[in-house]
Amino acid sequence: MFEHSTTSFPIRTDLAMEAGERFTKDNVEISGVTIEEDYDKKREITITKVVIETEKGARAMGKPKGTYITMEAPNLSVPDEDYHREISVRLSKLIRELIPCKDKEDTSVLVVGLGNRMVTADALGPQVADNLLITRHIVREYGKAAMGEEHVCQISSIVPGVMAQTGMETLEILQGIVSETKPDYIIAIDALAARSTKRLNRTIQIADTGIHPGSGVGNHRCSISMESLGVPVIAIGVPTVVEATTIVHDTKGDVQTAPHLNGMYVTPKDIDEAVKRLSFTISEGLNLALQAS
Amino acid sequence: MFEHSTTSFPIRTDLAMEAGERFTKDNVEISGVTIEEDYDKKREITITKVVIETEKGARAMGKPKGTYITMEAPNLSVPDEDYHREISVRLSKLIRELIPCKDKEDTSVLVVGLGNRMVTADALGPQVADNLLITRHIVREYGKAAMGEEHVCQISSIVPGVMAQTGMETLEILQGIVSETKPDYIIAIDALAARSTKRLNRTIQIADTGIHPGSGVGNHRCSISMESLGVPVIAIGVPTVVEATTIVHDTKGDVQTAPHLNGMYVTPKDIDEAVKRLSFTISEGLNLALQAS
Amino acid sequence: MFEHSTTSFPIRTDLAMEAGERFTKDNVEISGVTIEEDYDKKREITITKVVIETEKGARAMGKPKGTYITMEAPNLSVPDEDYHREISVRLSKLIRELIPCKDKEDTSVLVVGLGNRMVTADALGPQVADNLLITRHIVREYGKAAMGEEHVCQISSIVPGVMAQTGMETLEILQGIVSETKPDYIIAIDALAARSTKRLNRTIQIADTGIHPGSGVGNHRCSISMESLGVPVIAIGVPTVVEATTIVHDTKGDVQTAPHLNGMYVTPKDIDEAVKRLSFTISEGLNLALQAS
Amino acid sequence: MFEHSTTSFPIRTDLAMEAGERFTKDNVEISGVTIEEDYDKKREITITKVVIETEKGARAMGKPKGTYITMEAPNLSVPDEDYHREISVRLSKLIRELIPCKDKEDTSVLVVGLGNRMVTADALGPQVADNLLITRHIVREYGKAAMGEEHVCQISSIVPGVMAQTGMETLEILQGIVSETKPDYIIAIDALAARSTKRLNRTIQIADTGIHPGSGVGNHRCSISMESLGVPVIAIGVPTVVEATTIVHDTKGDVQTAPHLNGMYVTPKDIDEAVKRLSFTISEGLNLALQAS
Repeated sequence: MFEHSTTSFPIRTDLAMEAGERFTKDNVEISGVTIEEDYDKKREITITKVVIETEKGARAMGKPKGTYITMEAPNLSVPDEDYHREISVRLSKLIRELIPCKDKEDTSVLVVGLGNRMVTADALGPQVADNLLITRHIVREYGKAAMGEEHVCQISSIVPGVMAQTGMETLEILQGIVSETKPDYIIAIDALAARSTKRLNRTIQIADTGIHPGSGVGNHRCSISMESLGVPVIAIGVPTVVEATTIVHDTKGDVQTAPHLNGMYVTPKDIDEAVKRLSFTISEGLNLALQAS
Repeated sequence: MFEHSTTSFPIRTDLAMEAGERFTKDNVEISGVTIEEDYDKKREITITKVVIETEKGARAMGKPKGTYITMEAPNLSVPDEDYHREISVRLSKLIRELIPCKDKEDTSVLVVGLGNRMVTADALGPQVADNLLITRHIVREYGKAAMGEEHVCQISSIVPGVMAQTGMETLEILQGIVSETKPDYIIAIDALAARSTKRLNRTIQIADTGIHPGSGVGNHRCSISMESLGVPVIAIGVPTVVEATTIVHDTKGDVQTAPHLNGMYVTPKDIDEAVKRLSFTISEGLNLALQAS
Repeated sequence: MFEHSTTSFPIRTDLAMEAGERFTKDNVEISGVTIEEDYDKKREITITKVVIETEKGARAMGKPKGTYITMEAPNLSVPDEDYHREISVRLSKLIRELIPCKDKEDTSVLVVGLGNRMVTADALGPQVADNLLITRHIVREYGKAAMGEEHVCQISSIVPGVMAQTGMETLEILQGIVSETKPDYIIAIDALAARSTKRLNRTIQIADTGIHPGSGVGNHRCSISMESLGVPVIAIGVPTVVEATTIVHDTKGDVQTAPHLNGMYVTPKDIDEAVKRLSFTISEGLNLALQAS
Repeated sequence: MFEHSTTSFPIRTDLAMEAGERFTKDNVEISGVTIEEDYDKKREITITKVVIETEKGARAMGKPKGTYITMEAPNLSVPDEDYHREISVRLSKLIRELIPCKDKEDTSVLVVGLGNRMVTADALGPQVADNLLITRHIVREYGKAAMGEEHVCQISSIVPGVMAQTGMETLEILQGIVSETKPDYIIAIDALAARSTKRLNRTIQIADTGIHPGSGVGNHRCSISMESLGVPVIAIGVPTVVEATTIVHDTKGDVQTAPHLNGMYVTPKDIDEAVKRLSFTISEGLNLALQAS
């Protein structure tokens, strides 16, 4: 069943909203999937919430069950500091809904910066980790008072690297760290592949499903999820590339061609700057969500 | 005439051999253009020499008159040190043919690293400059004896940056430096756009024509050439991107579509590593060509 | 005379206020030199203005005639965004006094990022240049209206590199660029050597004298000044290192010892982060000074 | 006893040979410590082997029991490729003596790149990890045949980051990874503090004792050793800094002075380039030691 669905939907996207689009385009309702859209005209921000409720819905969408929230903001690709601040604030609210630090004084969160620091389009996760306010060691050494806040999460962070750098599955590294440090939540940040170039560096997806095999620019092999780690895993991602074969398919309607496009990305000319800016915006969102009382 | 030719050949390539291909494919001989190919089976290196001899040939090819030598080596994208050394040696021989340092004791060469250091696919020029052996200041201060060689070029180097960084045309910067330091030759290194992804990071083009408007990943606006600088300009380039519209055209045969692909690149997943490795290989080629007696 | 003065004052500092200290410490008045100090208690910012009015004063201080303004702010080394913003604003006012863009609609300013991008303690100038708003090419192409301001400077920028990278004197490069692009003012940014580790990364010096031989972390060999370039040169610097021999002298009172300390720096452990933060603060000061109407 | 010893030997060094020097200088034999020196005149390489055999010796030296081999090579600071290759070969032999991969077909080694990637003088470990040939994932997926060698180690690698970046003790991270991936050996690479600037970037220390609290540029808080991880830990380090207080003490013979020198390093001007070069040389040594049959 899943195989069949793959044949009819061969184009890879890590965005649930894009997976849903081919249905909504045809006015087809997918059983077990609800899609809500909310548009802030003034700020030009579209928030799409896709909930995949059943296994049948999961098969149709090619994504695991769970909630996927996407924030699309065309101006994310523009260096406007106030706009990025606004996005950070909205992101922090969405994160807070999923991780209610406030109610549990000692909530500890491990932020995982997935991807390869040495590959620009895949460096989102490591760069987000670089800008985080890390507090676990301070809270553990000096108590919460040291942070000057009543309620504070214990934030830790790791940039595990990719398998070609470490020789280890990311999951092996995380299992070890989780069993030693026992965080209450994991937030995994990753660069994604989209189907449409329109979404590159303008879209942030937050999902409560973790990360699954074959997703991400670096193509993870094992799932990083509640099932594999025993801890809820929130995934935050931004599409930074479209696979080159997708472009050809979407404009030509045929995928058999173009074997030389394997291993090729489509990416905007300003990808280095865009990843830097987006990383900062997401770090700020996390810092706001997890620090303030 | 030129405009018409542009309409019928809308796909951008900075490689003269690719511009020639559409003719050779159809067994058409282009008046005023000679193309020679030489294949080293053992090393899998193809050297193609395109000479554009007449203005008519230049119009047909969409490139200025001059000699374009292309070295294609599929293994350039593989981290094989010996192979890269071999390429450096061959490159040095091709450069020596164009800049015969030996015969002129005080030959001075200004190497210009074009492109944007902050944009991975456009950073070839700056990274080549970073690895060069610079000698002009030593020769001028201590004489040639200081270099331990009988014949030595005076090598200087500049990374001018791109207009968005400097507010100046690259040509303005170079005119100033050339008029102050009066080099005998300029070697300009730049990242190029190709038509086929097969050539990305596997091809080195050396031309005696300088750099012309609209070429390079960064799209130069002024020519950097004998005409504009009064000094012979050798251009060395490696294609690191294909423009996304080209991919669609080549597989679909139609360009009207896909406006959202403007400003998008197709580039291999390992572009960061590839540019680093290629820069080193070209620097070594230049160092061999310009230093040794 | 100058030589003698060197013997009795062998410790290198690029800060005029430090050169003045040994006199004020002993309550000695230096003929031809005036020193004013202003302290903002709330913000803990000390502004010291040293004016060297005569050649005699210049010899005594070991610095050329001119005005040197130093802003000392202990919290500059702390990652407090609001505080850094405050410093940027004050810096912009000091720059505006020296470069009154407002009164001259077409004022053009060339910002020169001196130093070596590849050496952390010497990378202040290049990093400031990386964060500047560059406008010259826009104003020249689209007119001032494109900037949305009534009064706007034309800002251009160059990172010339150091002699070991270019084989050229920085002065040669700048003379060429100045003669081509004819800016009204030059602002040269450079990392400095101080005498006291207390001042590292906490002090910004602005001088209307340009840059002089032997100064800067990279030890410039030629002066970059009104005399050599025909254009007023404002120098902005931050001390990032103390030469190791200075430390020994200052604590021991003897310099003959310690030849193995030649070529050694004393620098704070967080130098990488500090240079990044300071560069941003200075860029912001320049952007405020030169852009806003 | 240990405290007393600290008072009389307050100057920090991570090099056992420097800890030994104050004794040999006075012709004092230290009970429980043997020191052997071997000098290769042609290559100017000094190899010093310090064996601390007893607890008494450990107290006298201020270092744990174990074997410390130091390779001093003045030309390590010079960019001579052949010389660095020679050092890599020698290093590989010293490593092979400690990790006899040959005799055990499935030896697995986890290389840990300690230190802070963002702080130049502390980035040795991360940069060594960046250049390693990683094989564990290949051997596990395709078998040893995939490596084209009869005997091959399974190499994995991690760059854990420092506590300010991760909020976790390095030991916590490593305990987790070790319990998941069960390597036979750990090799921990770290930047060290020396007592003499003469040794900076010219000395490689290999010890079978692991890493101990207070050592390294980043000052580790927990030991990373056989005791804490249950696996033999080989430590490889290069001194990249001298603490500024040490300089004053050594030239002045008094430490009470100079509180403003706390948190200050003495480091050579070419530290960025030196760390890059040394990292490459050590990676090559590890690659030679662990890959070849």
